[in-house]
Amino acid sequence: MNEYPSVLLENAVSQFASLPGIGRKTALRLVLNLLRRDSNEVNHFASALTRLKTEVHYCKYCHNISDTEVCSICSSSKRQRQTICVVENIQDVLSIEKTGQYNGLYHVLGGVISPVDGIGPKDIELDSLVERIEPENIEEVILALPTTLEGDTTNYYIFKRLQQFNIRITQIARGVAIGNELEFTDEITLGRSIVNRTEFKG
Amino acid sequence: MNEYPSVLLENAVSQFASLPGIGRKTALRLVLNLLRRDSNEVNHFASALTRLKTEVHYCKYCHNISDTEVCSICSSSKRQRQTICVVENIQDVLSIEKTGQYNGLYHVLGGVISPVDGIGPKDIELDSLVERIEPENIEEVILALPTTLEGDTTNYYIFKRLQQFNIRITQIARGVAIGNELEFTDEITLGRSIVNRTEFKG
Repeated sequence: MNEYPSVLLENAVSQFASLPGIGRKTALRLVLNLLRRDSNEVNHFASALTRLKTEVHYCKYCHNISDTEVCSICSSSKRQRQTICVVENIQDVLSIEKTGQYNGLYHVLGGVISPVDGIGPKDIELDSLVERIEPENIEEVILALPTTLEGDTTNYYIFKRLQQFNIRITQIARGVAIGNELEFTDEITLGRSIVNRTEFKG
Repeated sequence: MNEYPSVLLENAVSQFASLPGIGRKTALRLVLNLLRRDSNEVNHFASALTRLKTEVHYCKYCHNISDTEVCSICSSSKRQRQTICVVENIQDVLSIEKTGQYNGLYHVLGGVISPVDGIGPKDIELDSLVERIEPENIEEVILALPTTLEGDTTNYYIFKRLQQFNIRITQIARGVAIGNELEFTDEITLGRSIVNRTEFKG
């Protein structure tokens, strides 16, 4: 027995409900919203999805999402080309771009090393990072991975692989988030922010 | 300047973000989830949407969503055919069906009368309700509209239109929700539940 009076409705709801964080009730609300629109709009919606999947590229250098073989960042003449910022995924590129504080290149790993989940160094874009260093004359690699056990493991692995090159290897600063009260900061972060204190340049 | 490095990504995110309750950050998360799936799955998703829109029917009697000209409820031989339950929308049919307490027919208005929003009696399926009473030998109409000002207005309007027929007109019970504490029940509901108290049948 179907929950809905229409198999077509059932299918559409199931598709939306397969997305992360969307339950069947929300899915139904979204589908009924689409159903109220005219056919053109729904076709645009559907074709945006299929075109995205069939036509999108991943930059052959940094593996960021792109409409072309080389992404707009890697092909830009305005970027500082001797620095690579290593991130876990595409969202991280967007987040760092939004800060306006970085003008170098990126390298999207597409994941971090996680033995528990069966993700090893070969499953992410690590070799391709190492292969970029010499041809592109990279001078600095900034590790901007999540501050988790998996992120740290991946950082260490990358550090080991890059030691053969005469480059600077840095990682993003860790500490108390700007605007946060100390009493609400977790003790590991707070502890490390004391150990790793920096010179006050009044 | 685009927020995203890909116009295709931008389009897909905008489509999802056009849905109610989905912001751009959530939309991006959903789109990147789809992007990780294989093309077949994404095509299924897209075609579920276009097929829904192009192939779905609304039952010619009750206006519920359906895959056929007459919905599964209206065409069922197991339903009690002398009672119509009047509801605002398709979700309400699903909600009432889930209770398992109703075995009659439905009539989906597709809205309620709301002068503020410019919705009058002609904009919803009211005439078609009146036209069902005699041909279908309806004996009872249950008003199951929202317990709002608009719902009440619509109830009253339907009541006036149906008075010409020799049928029973009822409305769903209103009162303190089952499992609710009195102290957390709003005072209008509580007040009415005292005025409209029913005989206690030990």
